[in-house]
Amino acid sequence: MNTRHFLMMEKQKAVLEKAAQIFHIRHLLLQQGLAECLGTLVLVTFGCGSVAQMLLSGGSHGAFLTVNLAFGFAATLGILISGQVSGGHLNPAVTFALCLLGREPWRKFPVYFLFQTLGAFLGAGIIFGMYSDALWDYGQGTLSVDGTNATAGIFATYPSPHLSLLNGFFDQLIGTAALIVCILAIVDPHNTPVPAGLEAFTVGLVVLVIGLSMGFNSGYAVNPARDLGPRLFTALAGWGSGVFTVKGYWFLVPLFAPFLGAVVGVVVYQLMVGYNVEGEARIQRRREEEESLKYATITTINEEA
Amino acid sequence: MNTRHFLMMEKQKAVLEKAAQIFHIRHLLLQQGLAECLGTLVLVTFGCGSVAQMLLSGGSHGAFLTVNLAFGFAATLGILISGQVSGGHLNPAVTFALCLLGREPWRKFPVYFLFQTLGAFLGAGIIFGMYSDALWDYGQGTLSVDGTNATAGIFATYPSPHLSLLNGFFDQLIGTAALIVCILAIVDPHNTPVPAGLEAFTVGLVVLVIGLSMGFNSGYAVNPARDLGPRLFTALAGWGSGVFTVKGYWFLVPLFAPFLGAVVGVVVYQLMVGYNVEGEARIQRRREEEESLKYATITTINEEA
Amino acid sequence: MNTRHFLMMEKQKAVLEKAAQIFHIRHLLLQQGLAECLGTLVLVTFGCGSVAQMLLSGGSHGAFLTVNLAFGFAATLGILISGQVSGGHLNPAVTFALCLLGREPWRKFPVYFLFQTLGAFLGAGIIFGMYSDALWDYGQGTLSVDGTNATAGIFATYPSPHLSLLNGFFDQLIGTAALIVCILAIVDPHNTPVPAGLEAFTVGLVVLVIGLSMGFNSGYAVNPARDLGPRLFTALAGWGSGVFTVKGYWFLVPLFAPFLGAVVGVVVYQLMVGYNVEGEARIQRRREEEESLKYATITTINEEA
Amino acid sequence: MNTRHFLMMEKQKAVLEKAAQIFHIRHLLLQQGLAECLGTLVLVTFGCGSVAQMLLSGGSHGAFLTVNLAFGFAATLGILISGQVSGGHLNPAVTFALCLLGREPWRKFPVYFLFQTLGAFLGAGIIFGMYSDALWDYGQGTLSVDGTNATAGIFATYPSPHLSLLNGFFDQLIGTAALIVCILAIVDPHNTPVPAGLEAFTVGLVVLVIGLSMGFNSGYAVNPARDLGPRLFTALAGWGSGVFTVKGYWFLVPLFAPFLGAVVGVVVYQLMVGYNVEGEARIQRRREEEESLKYATITTINEEA
Repeated sequence: MNTRHFLMMEKQKAVLEKAAQIFHIRHLLLQQGLAECLGTLVLVTFGCGSVAQMLLSGGSHGAFLTVNLAFGFAATLGILISGQVSGGHLNPAVTFALCLLGREPWRKFPVYFLFQTLGAFLGAGIIFGMYSDALWDYGQGTLSVDGTNATAGIFATYPSPHLSLLNGFFDQLIGTAALIVCILAIVDPHNTPVPAGLEAFTVGLVVLVIGLSMGFNSGYAVNPARDLGPRLFTALAGWGSGVFTVKGYWFLVPLFAPFLGAVVGVVVYQLMVGYNVEGEARIQRRREEEESLKYATITTINEEA
Repeated sequence: MNTRHFLMMEKQKAVLEKAAQIFHIRHLLLQQGLAECLGTLVLVTFGCGSVAQMLLSGGSHGAFLTVNLAFGFAATLGILISGQVSGGHLNPAVTFALCLLGREPWRKFPVYFLFQTLGAFLGAGIIFGMYSDALWDYGQGTLSVDGTNATAGIFATYPSPHLSLLNGFFDQLIGTAALIVCILAIVDPHNTPVPAGLEAFTVGLVVLVIGLSMGFNSGYAVNPARDLGPRLFTALAGWGSGVFTVKGYWFLVPLFAPFLGAVVGVVVYQLMVGYNVEGEARIQRRREEEESLKYATITTINEEA
Repeated sequence: MNTRHFLMMEKQKAVLEKAAQIFHIRHLLLQQGLAECLGTLVLVTFGCGSVAQMLLSGGSHGAFLTVNLAFGFAATLGILISGQVSGGHLNPAVTFALCLLGREPWRKFPVYFLFQTLGAFLGAGIIFGMYSDALWDYGQGTLSVDGTNATAGIFATYPSPHLSLLNGFFDQLIGTAALIVCILAIVDPHNTPVPAGLEAFTVGLVVLVIGLSMGFNSGYAVNPARDLGPRLFTALAGWGSGVFTVKGYWFLVPLFAPFLGAVVGVVVYQLMVGYNVEGEARIQRRREEEESLKYATITTINEEA
Repeated sequence: MNTRHFLMMEKQKAVLEKAAQIFHIRHLLLQQGLAECLGTLVLVTFGCGSVAQMLLSGGSHGAFLTVNLAFGFAATLGILISGQVSGGHLNPAVTFALCLLGREPWRKFPVYFLFQTLGAFLGAGIIFGMYSDALWDYGQGTLSVDGTNATAGIFATYPSPHLSLLNGFFDQLIGTAALIVCILAIVDPHNTPVPAGLEAFTVGLVVLVIGLSMGFNSGYAVNPARDLGPRLFTALAGWGSGVFTVKGYWFLVPLFAPFLGAVVGVVVYQLMVGYNVEGEARIQRRREEEESLKYATITTINEEA
């Protein structure tokens, strides 16, 4: 390495270290919020990007399977990016389920929800920018919520024509319950089915499978932030308030049903598996404590004798 | 954390701990049955859900490949959820094979079979509820076993027109034998090809591959519970007794052939690989014992001298 | 557990242990041959099964992608089953490459080749039996090598119409070279890119990628046994000698080109990466030896002083 | 082993060891360049091969999804082959990002860029040779850059008709930024989301997802070497200078935009996650140092007393 190169590297190192200190955010919950924001941004950028690619290419560059794969692996990547800082929920229903089980404090819930929605909003914006020419081309200069050239479905979810609101509510409830059952099994401290470090990949698999089997009714949002953020974006970016009012205020379904689904998922998993693995672990622990107590007593007696 | 938040969290923790104690089932075999039930429920919900999605969307939201992927990864998730408690068989033919090899006691077999079938039954019910609007729409108000709007094939398996009963029996036998050969290799204590914790993913791969190459004849049930449970559900839910009588009592084939396939799989694997890796391990163990015996003798002689 | 159950289990255990001793084959090379046979059988059963499913279903139950996935994951499963016993080559070109590098003794080569071809032959037979009704249906009672109802391509590979023999030879050479470059990297003791236990999955990925990008010319045999075994089977099972004579004795190309490809793969990998990682490891080892020697000398001098 | 076999093996071993010493390149940066060259060659051979297979088969042997899968897994394999020697960048934008962060010295940048481009050039040549008959057949004897029989798109990327240069620039910028954000998370020493040895697989997933969601505008080069190398090859191999001049000198976009994207990716990741995990690690380290200092002081005081 010549001297000039060496000096440049030294200077660069100094600049980088200074930046590292300036931009280090000391507030832990804000750190976590930013991580959730970036994670959900990645989820929505890749996920909604794949819907855009399928729709705008008229099927030549994508299909429902590619959307499923993209959302699944995008979830994996979003979790990997944010997991160490925030746990990588990327979904208020997941945060809600973990709060219900006392594994996360409730005050995290509104903060995570906010930043997840913000991330989803920004992700929608990135896809809007990236595919702006194609959106213009496909929509022939309009941004419409329904009709043959509708493009709102790239960003938020809308129900299929066959779907009633009631069935739609059940659809989102079941989809989220299935998600939560699987996630709880994966992260249950007493039921450790996955080697450490593979949780994100497994959750990605869950999202993929939900898309493969529960996606036909209304596009498997199963995540209030992933749906609300992009919907807000489209409302502001030119699709208008129709994104909220269309199909009988459909937007309320993917906003609220997932939380009920989270409750159902928690109850089903805990009753059928969770409480049993926890209970067995508790019994095992108590037995070990008794053993060590008995031993301690014997030792004491021996010592006294 | 403010005081009110803190008190709320404390109260929540107390409630959760109480629930954990109340709902902990002390009966081990019942625990295992419930785990098998939930695991098979997940398998069938996702698996049959993907068939529903493919069929009811007219192919726009799925294809045979997506069904294969869904069943494969659903098997992975079902095994992950239940594996620690029950071993994650999710299939009476798997339980049967492990009983044959003396790795599970026979009394588990009827209990597992029952709960696996129950889980499959419930999973079919969930998909029925989730896609009820779509089923109504597609079937134009009828639930039929055959004909152009038949929907029974979402739940149980039916043979392709080209298939004779004899070929169908061989199809299920070979499919299950292939499944068992692979599973035995994966869980063989003397032939450990997969890092600990990746068994469920590898079994999912097996189910995927079977679907990719052995699915055309009759939809690769290779699992009596996965077929019988949903078939019972459809019989009760409105498709009627035709689900049993159609195609020359076809339902008996996926109910019985898999057990014969399990026998074939056990024999093939054990003769070609299993007994050899076991034998080499036995020889190795015996050699080590002899070594330590020889050493012990020498030591004794030396000490005596 | 009641007494009768207990006695039955004891009796079963005795029978199983006796079987384990009787069927344990003491000859190591024969053990390895059998493992290669079963591994290649699994590869060809799933691989050719997926071609059968695609072709016989007229594309409704498969596509070229599903064939690629099936061959890739079938390779993974075949390697997992046989790997501990025989190394899981499943391909004479792989055995050849490892012999070239002195990692396997040459006398293994003919034995492995024979058993790999036998496994592929048997795998073809299983698929023939499994899809016999469908084959009859599709071929309208004939088993033909070319023409609109040709089914020979399910088992062995045949060139696309556009392909000359020379280009076909180059195709097989390059495909096998690519396979060998990747496999050598994966199993190179000095270049350990994959965590222990994931080699089989990575090799499956290699086979998948080769199918995705090198499959259009002639179906990416890149494996003399995988091609010859099923071709022999079809010759005997009713397709006749045309499987050998058609397209200017094409069968010689996938039989011989892979070995030349293996040589190319070995040379390319070794020159561009292999000899360098090996050389660095040698230098490192020598340095450590010198260090310990220097230390030993110093110690000796000190002691003498 | 008979004597003749033994002697042959000994002679082979001697030859191999001699070759190992002769062909070991002592220059470290050249070693790394060669590894980058082979890695990128593998990436482009498999990646562009899959485009060739899709295009030349008229869609019967591939689709955009198979191209996505091939590029993703080809990236994995290229990284696995070269990773230990060179880090497995395979992309000048990745090298650039790591230089920006001071993790690689800048003098590596031009060398890596050169060898990556060389590898991509050679990979294009391999695909050209492998599919020469099919190229001739499809192009009816011509090698054209645009029009119905255009084949230049097999090798380098070209924009879709709907795409303006500005949107294209943004497309490549965003695609590369997304790639860099994910890669930085995966290799960040303070944010270790992936078990050691799985980095290559995860990066492959990133490339796959980018293809699934950001591939419609212009084929997601996001890699100056992967685009320039094959473009140079086509210019020389008969497509002519049109590969550079067509679509308003489009080739400049995938050549320069990725570097800007790398800057954006570095900034976004560092601000939202990177500096925070680094900062927390720094605080933790300082705390431990203070603890040990305090302890040392106490010990000293005690000793003095």
